[in-house]
Amino acid sequence: MAYNSIESMDVLVNELSKLPGVGKKTAQRYAYFIISNDKSYAESLSNAIKEAKENIHECPRCGNFTDTEECAICSRTDREPIVCVVKEPKDVMAIDRINNFKGTYHVLHGVINPIEGKGPNDINLASLLRRVNEEHIKEVIVATNPDVEGEATAIYISNLLKPLGVTVTRIAQGISIGSELEFADAMTLSKAIDSRRPM
Amino acid sequence: MAYNSIESMDVLVNELSKLPGVGKKTAQRYAYFIISNDKSYAESLSNAIKEAKENIHECPRCGNFTDTEECAICSRTDREPIVCVVKEPKDVMAIDRINNFKGTYHVLHGVINPIEGKGPNDINLASLLRRVNEEHIKEVIVATNPDVEGEATAIYISNLLKPLGVTVTRIAQGISIGSELEFADAMTLSKAIDSRRPM
Repeated sequence: MAYNSIESMDVLVNELSKLPGVGKKTAQRYAYFIISNDKSYAESLSNAIKEAKENIHECPRCGNFTDTEECAICSRTDREPIVCVVKEPKDVMAIDRINNFKGTYHVLHGVINPIEGKGPNDINLASLLRRVNEEHIKEVIVATNPDVEGEATAIYISNLLKPLGVTVTRIAQGISIGSELEFADAMTLSKAIDSRRPM
Repeated sequence: MAYNSIESMDVLVNELSKLPGVGKKTAQRYAYFIISNDKSYAESLSNAIKEAKENIHECPRCGNFTDTEECAICSRTDREPIVCVVKEPKDVMAIDRINNFKGTYHVLHGVINPIEGKGPNDINLASLLRRVNEEHIKEVIVATNPDVEGEATAIYISNLLKPLGVTVTRIAQGISIGSELEFADAMTLSKAIDSRRPM
């Protein structure tokens, strides 16, 4: 290996292998592709990274990523006074795909996680409280992940907001559409039965 | 989706999804990671891409990638007069890992492939011929892939070089070490039996 090391290649492989789920082999594959391709690709990729990081910031209202002053969703004039609270900006994208939600979002940029030393003050909660007061929000849907930290955060938010007279709801947990009962884990199955609805 | 589109994010996702094996979902995951991370990562990744592409060129002797005038392997003074011919620069890395090969390499940057309109003049063959003449090469090991195009290219190289009095060899084809006979395909098994060696 020593005889074939190319410093700027090693640097590139090292940077690429920091991407989520990318090991050294995959990083090398990407690096060889970038080097082998014509110069315009390396340039456009390099610029796209720099420009995205420079242009994109958090929306001052909801915390979602945006490249405009206020994010496109918060700027809608026909939005309903419902806020969907999520952990990360990519969760906004996931929910926004379904198209029948006309409210706004609120991105926490994390969840309460005592093990990692993250308390309620370390996530984007103060501005949620302010929004509920100022924007005449009728309902807050807590859409954090259905794991321990997500649940704890949901309960914390519920306790925080209920005294303000706003309805706080939690996204339903149960069997995924198209999945089979036989493969569902016990926790999910138990939640699905607890949350059963009349037909 | 329309309400949540961020132009510089879309550009970044589009560029990232050109990487080999990267679909839109993975590109989005990478993009969110780049945006969420602190500014220094976006900068160092962006610069690493630009610098690697700017600094790395093909070695004028062997065609391998290098960031020096002549590649590190060709610059070795203790190299043996054996040339290992490979399809791509990443094949050099694969063989160089095994550490007991002290010769040099010759990167074809492709193989003969009539379907893609690639003939012998479209790959790095002229300089191989020149090297065999000038560098007193004793043996040329053809290490192209064991597929139709790789085999055809190997035969072409063999016919081209044999009149010059150089020994041309082909890497052995057979059962992979650690694999099981039962799972080997018929072609490989047939090659392994044809190429059997006395013990």
